[in-house]
Amino acid sequence: MKNFKPYYAVIFTSTQATDIKGYSVMAEKMENLAKQQKGYLGMDSARNDVGITISYWKSLEAIKNWKANTAHLFAQQKGREQWYNWYNVRICKVEREYEFTLE
Amino acid sequence: MKNFKPYYAVIFTSTQATDIKGYSVMAEKMENLAKQQKGYLGMDSARNDVGITISYWKSLEAIKNWKANTAHLFAQQKGREQWYNWYNVRICKVEREYEFTLE
Repeated sequence: MKNFKPYYAVIFTSTQATDIKGYSVMAEKMENLAKQQKGYLGMDSARNDVGITISYWKSLEAIKNWKANTAHLFAQQKGREQWYNWYNVRICKVEREYEFTLE
Repeated sequence: MKNFKPYYAVIFTSTQATDIKGYSVMAEKMENLAKQQKGYLGMDSARNDVGITISYWKSLEAIKNWKANTAHLFAQQKGREQWYNWYNVRICKVEREYEFTLE
């Protein structure tokens, strides 16, 4: 991902409601759909008490287009109506990056 | 956190080694120590296949100081020697933020 610098990260943090019926199917669908978008670079995701999904994008325009994607808009609405008690979205510019790999 | 804009996020993603003895004690210690640092704003953390810890800071200087903190330097070294197979650090500027809370 370092080859695309500067690039952008969308940090999505959330807490889920009690009834999350349909959530995991939709989450997988959205991940697959995101991967097909222009400017998509990658994704990291984990959930314990709080869920964190970070998606990486080449530009702010790519993020804007993904946010406005029709199927994604529907998923966002379902999220607000059913799956999430709370969520927060941060749009970030990745300014520096370094990596460690065990030899 | 919105009151401190622009502010910074450090995205730390990692995969752990097999032997993580001592890790959770150190992680808790580092979280408590980070909270005491000047310019610290908050932290989000979750781990499944990949671990994600995001810490939020008022400035790049605050991030630099935390990285160079003696006890934290020791923890970073232990991490490379024992706990992590891989990690990646991204320094990001938070450019926009929005939130949803269930009414």
